[in-house]
Amino acid sequence: MSNSPGGQRGPAEHERRDQIISAAREHFRHYGYSKTTVADLAKAIGLSTAYIYKFFDSKKAIGEAVCALCLGHIAEAVRSVAQEPKPASERLRRVFIELARQGAALYSETPKMHDIVAAALVEKWQPCESHEVALMSIVRQIVQDGREAGEFERKTPLDETCRAIFLALEPINNPALLVQRLEKIEEDAATVASLVLRSLAR
Amino acid sequence: MSNSPGGQRGPAEHERRDQIISAAREHFRHYGYSKTTVADLAKAIGLSTAYIYKFFDSKKAIGEAVCALCLGHIAEAVRSVAQEPKPASERLRRVFIELARQGAALYSETPKMHDIVAAALVEKWQPCESHEVALMSIVRQIVQDGREAGEFERKTPLDETCRAIFLALEPINNPALLVQRLEKIEEDAATVASLVLRSLAR
Repeated sequence: MSNSPGGQRGPAEHERRDQIISAAREHFRHYGYSKTTVADLAKAIGLSTAYIYKFFDSKKAIGEAVCALCLGHIAEAVRSVAQEPKPASERLRRVFIELARQGAALYSETPKMHDIVAAALVEKWQPCESHEVALMSIVRQIVQDGREAGEFERKTPLDETCRAIFLALEPINNPALLVQRLEKIEEDAATVASLVLRSLAR
Repeated sequence: MSNSPGGQRGPAEHERRDQIISAAREHFRHYGYSKTTVADLAKAIGLSTAYIYKFFDSKKAIGEAVCALCLGHIAEAVRSVAQEPKPASERLRRVFIELARQGAALYSETPKMHDIVAAALVEKWQPCESHEVALMSIVRQIVQDGREAGEFERKTPLDETCRAIFLALEPINNPALLVQRLEKIEEDAATVASLVLRSLAR
């Protein structure tokens, strides 16, 4: 029950939710997910843990919200290069490079956030699945555009081509794999992108 | 100092070493690497821990030897399909499939051994690097053969092509990634192999 007048309940609660996510992000970034408790977050923003549980079922739910924010940021950056007014081949190459850059930046700037994303992926948290769907849709759009423009071959079924490209993105996209070759991740991204583009040539 | 007569020391020690590795493999397989101690192994084969330390510097060194055995088995299976008297494209496709099968079998049959390999990879144990070198050399041989036979394009520098194929193998070869799509790993291997083969077409 809310006592807020004039339908303010929704927006006000929305702000509160954002406040919790924001505090969680700072805590996870500095101390890591496993070392942060819901009580820590409650204390940081002057709320009771019970109040936080009104918004999130569990610490994992907060973790998922932070993870979604983080992956959403990466997907946004990738989508932005994917939508530039350039040939499909160039856009696809830049998707590989941008994903490498974003992954490397996440790891370098906020290694503890990177750890959360890596763990979330292993445990199949929902935001990771949404992220896969987002990437897949970016790849699909470029492949379709390239086919329509006559840049890419059309013999291979579209689904197969997209799935194959998605798999080829894995060494760049997967946090655990990215870490293992961080110093040359952009070069590797370019190398795989070139292979993919050769495979798409007519 | 050995009291063995007639130069038997080498071979005898070699057998002892194998005996330790064999016991370690059984223990790791059943209890996992982290729950097995050098004392457990010593007890299992009726030796002192000091005697085991004559052969291996540390538990990690034993783990590496077991890991090398395990990866050696996989590389051998892959090398065997790579050397069949077939066109290079067919051999390359089978390398992808065989790697998927071997990885899936390792995980399904001995999940705790699979965990060791996954951990070894993250910690860059020496046998993992040797395994990479072995796979790379298998890929390179097939690409060279395919180029010489006129099956594959020759415009792309050989090193670049081989590195790109090696990266494209990662979603199949990496234990952590394989586990995430175990039920369709062979299908995925075939899908990536087809993309790679399209990229190699003249």
